[in-house]
Amino acid sequence: MNAPDKLAQLLSLTREPFPASTKAWITGSRPDLRVPVRDVALSNGEVVSLYDTSGPYTDPAAAIDVRRGLPELRAAWIDERGDTERYEGRLRQALDDGLKHEERDSPRIAQLRADAAALQRIPRRARSGGNVTQMHYARRGIVTPEMEYVALRENGKREWMAEYLADAQRERRLAGNGLGARLPAVITPEFVRDEVARGRAIIPANINHPEVEPMAIGRNFRVKINANIGNSAVTSSIEEEVEKMVWAIRWGADNVMDLSTGRHIHTTRDWILRNSPVPIGTVPLYQALEKVGGVAEDLTWALYRDTLIEQAEQGVDYFTIHAGLRLPFIHLTAQRRTGIVSRGGSIMAKWCIAHHQESFLYTHFEEICEIMKAYDVSFSLGDGLRPGSAADANDEAQFAELRTLGELTQLAWQHDVQTMIEGPGHVPMHMIQANMDEQLKHCHEAPFYTLGPLTIDIAPGYDHIASAIGAAMIGWMGTAMLCYVTPKEHLGLPDREDVKQGIVAYKIAAHAADVAKGHPGARARDDALSKARFEFRWTDQFNLGLDPDTAREFHDETLPKDASKVAHFCSMCGPKFCSMKITQEVRDYAARGMGEKSAEFRAGGGELYVPIQPVG
Amino acid sequence: MNAPDKLAQLLSLTREPFPASTKAWITGSRPDLRVPVRDVALSNGEVVSLYDTSGPYTDPAAAIDVRRGLPELRAAWIDERGDTERYEGRLRQALDDGLKHEERDSPRIAQLRADAAALQRIPRRARSGGNVTQMHYARRGIVTPEMEYVALRENGKREWMAEYLADAQRERRLAGNGLGARLPAVITPEFVRDEVARGRAIIPANINHPEVEPMAIGRNFRVKINANIGNSAVTSSIEEEVEKMVWAIRWGADNVMDLSTGRHIHTTRDWILRNSPVPIGTVPLYQALEKVGGVAEDLTWALYRDTLIEQAEQGVDYFTIHAGLRLPFIHLTAQRRTGIVSRGGSIMAKWCIAHHQESFLYTHFEEICEIMKAYDVSFSLGDGLRPGSAADANDEAQFAELRTLGELTQLAWQHDVQTMIEGPGHVPMHMIQANMDEQLKHCHEAPFYTLGPLTIDIAPGYDHIASAIGAAMIGWMGTAMLCYVTPKEHLGLPDREDVKQGIVAYKIAAHAADVAKGHPGARARDDALSKARFEFRWTDQFNLGLDPDTAREFHDETLPKDASKVAHFCSMCGPKFCSMKITQEVRDYAARGMGEKSAEFRAGGGELYVPIQPVG
Repeated sequence: MNAPDKLAQLLSLTREPFPASTKAWITGSRPDLRVPVRDVALSNGEVVSLYDTSGPYTDPAAAIDVRRGLPELRAAWIDERGDTERYEGRLRQALDDGLKHEERDSPRIAQLRADAAALQRIPRRARSGGNVTQMHYARRGIVTPEMEYVALRENGKREWMAEYLADAQRERRLAGNGLGARLPAVITPEFVRDEVARGRAIIPANINHPEVEPMAIGRNFRVKINANIGNSAVTSSIEEEVEKMVWAIRWGADNVMDLSTGRHIHTTRDWILRNSPVPIGTVPLYQALEKVGGVAEDLTWALYRDTLIEQAEQGVDYFTIHAGLRLPFIHLTAQRRTGIVSRGGSIMAKWCIAHHQESFLYTHFEEICEIMKAYDVSFSLGDGLRPGSAADANDEAQFAELRTLGELTQLAWQHDVQTMIEGPGHVPMHMIQANMDEQLKHCHEAPFYTLGPLTIDIAPGYDHIASAIGAAMIGWMGTAMLCYVTPKEHLGLPDREDVKQGIVAYKIAAHAADVAKGHPGARARDDALSKARFEFRWTDQFNLGLDPDTAREFHDETLPKDASKVAHFCSMCGPKFCSMKITQEVRDYAARGMGEKSAEFRAGGGELYVPIQPVG
Repeated sequence: MNAPDKLAQLLSLTREPFPASTKAWITGSRPDLRVPVRDVALSNGEVVSLYDTSGPYTDPAAAIDVRRGLPELRAAWIDERGDTERYEGRLRQALDDGLKHEERDSPRIAQLRADAAALQRIPRRARSGGNVTQMHYARRGIVTPEMEYVALRENGKREWMAEYLADAQRERRLAGNGLGARLPAVITPEFVRDEVARGRAIIPANINHPEVEPMAIGRNFRVKINANIGNSAVTSSIEEEVEKMVWAIRWGADNVMDLSTGRHIHTTRDWILRNSPVPIGTVPLYQALEKVGGVAEDLTWALYRDTLIEQAEQGVDYFTIHAGLRLPFIHLTAQRRTGIVSRGGSIMAKWCIAHHQESFLYTHFEEICEIMKAYDVSFSLGDGLRPGSAADANDEAQFAELRTLGELTQLAWQHDVQTMIEGPGHVPMHMIQANMDEQLKHCHEAPFYTLGPLTIDIAPGYDHIASAIGAAMIGWMGTAMLCYVTPKEHLGLPDREDVKQGIVAYKIAAHAADVAKGHPGARARDDALSKARFEFRWTDQFNLGLDPDTAREFHDETLPKDASKVAHFCSMCGPKFCSMKITQEVRDYAARGMGEKSAEFRAGGGELYVPIQPVG
């Protein structure tokens, strides 16, 4: 199969809607403000409506041509604000794709680059001296369409939840424990504006990524997840990367980071951005390093700056920038068990030491802010000194950098640049709370965005699980976005199946956090699924799960016949032994017995229905 | 392939030692007290010694014939105590295997039963009126060989850990937070005796299961995990079940529950017990129900009692008994989202309501204690009213039963019967601590043994992950044993791969709990692996992980060449980009630079190595 055919085949696979699901929209205050949801039709006639990250790809009615890109959803909103201009943009260079001038493209690569050319846009930027960040608008009291979109999206449809929301009102134990989060029953556009203005949430939305369906990252919203994709010097191809993005958002990635290194990363990014309905993040340092042939010492501020502009013009929504790794902190890592494990961190450490100078990311931080605000690129302040093992968790190196990220957050906020803070890494359970506490204290509630953390080091091949434990806990404690870890972590590049496994593990962690925090409505999906389970609506149970395909497949391995989908038993217990079936009989019996039998029993002096003491 | 050949093939697979691993022993105060460990030889000449649940199956020198059973490790210890007698035992009945009298076995089943006959032993029991429980000995001040065995096993070899233990002494943050656990640096036999005497730990070790390698379940020991296996009315076979046990302990199951229902469960148990080096638990109610044709109302105390004796004579080490599900609590479940989901619980609820009588398990509890103490069967007091969904977590039904389990614990302790308490189930993260608190309060620190808990309901197909999150947390908080959940939970019967996935997920949870609690030496394995990772000792990294095969396989998918096993880079970053490689360069540079450069820099007025404020 040739490459385009392979891509077409992969994309056609990921364009299937989820079982029993249809794309629906919640329309806001203007007709072009339409927030997608996934409505799942249950076999009992009910509908459960879910948050939907999958973009137009799961809408059979959407005409999608990956060679032309997605519709520019936000173009009118950006235009109407009248504070941006189109401009010529930076001149593209062969080096952007890691190619030497004299090098000739292979026919296949030449074709891909030609295709990418059709996806290139004339960039926008803020009119001279302007500031086009969502934070800037928010602080001036403006509720943007993006903010309204986020509010509608966070609420979703509420009608179907009524029964479950009533439960939580009746029983305090079901309402969650926000641990300091501020979770209104219904999120208003004004609430979103307020959170963004205070820096407690960000809406990553570069003006050059008008295709994005806006979403918020903040502790008072649903916990989000990020999936990393990216080619590599060793393996993979552009086609696979685009399809990985579509695959990642299908399973629930709220954000995608393109961590490509090696060649063709500019072209890869064109493809991904123009086809991505979710915010795209990058680590610009990776590309900058490619441009200097992988020699960290040869990096310069001028070259790095040029790379930021290159990527901002393409539409990258947030940049990981390791500006908190300062020269004076580097010696703190010398006695570590695993030194510096962040790629960006180790590059910058090497640069600092080679030049014996403070990091140019730190010294030029306000110049970076000027670029960020001209395009509304958000900071993801990188944790270059995050621990790479349990032994290094919460050490001085890590927390010295974290405090610096707090200083930089305040600088960024002076420029109204949206900012989130990256966090570790490898952290045993008993040390997780301290990470959250330190981050809240020093970074003033700027959204925390953590990688896991992995709670143990001994699970290579299963680090998605070892880290989902830490991710769920830190999500509950206040982390706004969880960067996924795949089963291949520490071992190799994730393939399609690994990406899915990592995302599902992180959807579990994020949802567990939302339920524990008491995000309004989060538990309603659990309740709907459990109700289906109890009522033996097998298909509904599958379809309400995070991965309907796998649930159905697992069930069918033991009981493949269609009849068993409506059977009032399952393969664990068999027909005579089903506890759920017996419960229903008990319930019927109790309903009768409560009246007839209890009087009889009480007359005989027995205790039948004792009042139960409340739990202290 | 015929059945015996299939078994032989499966068993031969699971008899492979782990890579680079050899079985070694720690010898105690007598030559027949030899505690197995797994010594992993690293490529740098170091040896890491690990807790080993796999029994003789991973010892190539052990001659094993599953048709004859394992050596009777504890036979001499039991004999020497001189307080037991051999006796004729209960007469075996066709009904024990769920067969009708007139029914004829198929030739294959007849053969299996004949094989099982060769595995039957003349049972032992306490001499008249005697008590042979480990708790009874402990309370009389006797340190049994079983207690010494446990002490040696919990400590393992310590020499190799010296470097890592020193880290934890130097840095308080690495020492863990026991949350009320009492974890001595070295566990003495006297400590074990004391914990067992106080009821805070149990050593499940039926005198009719002399093959068992003793282990302890208690909050002040390593967190243990249980794997469930069992045939079913619908599928599976005896051969598969025996092999599943061997497979389960290979991957780290500390205990195995045989939850067989349907036919041939007596025979299945003979096979499993005689070949199991780990304690075996059952739910005797399942077999009792089979004997009355699945009609709960037809259960009687006499028939149940007979089943307890049948299983005690076979050597079952602990019984799940749902004696806390009392008649007055049943109505509390009527408004639940998912009623009663415990199989045992729903059977007893049905019985109680049908007869309108208090549960015979509750009313005959002291008679049950008499049986338990004659064989040293431990109680696993079942949570028949555990929540089956997030919506039902921590409700009155659940906690009313838990308080009753506390009452029963005190009754059992009056008989010196070892007791642990089963716990839920489905519990969102914010409600987990209350479960542990209530259990500690009402059950007086008797070991808690929880199923997960599952933190969300929407992950069918991934419930091993959804529950590993809750399991890790509750393990840290004080739960002594975690009952695994497989990916097939709620959907179907786990196969061989599911069992492994469930166990690995639970080893992760248990280890994460041990590390967080600060179990002495737990983190040493993480440190050794991380050190190997940092030093690019790929093979050591694989071999120190929970699943060396998968780690290696994942690595080789991207970089299959043998050369890359010693390469100082991996597929994630490629040769030029490796952060660990760069870190080493930074470290070398810093070591030089610290002397030369810092003086020079300080002379220029720069801050180079600032003192870092301690974290508050």
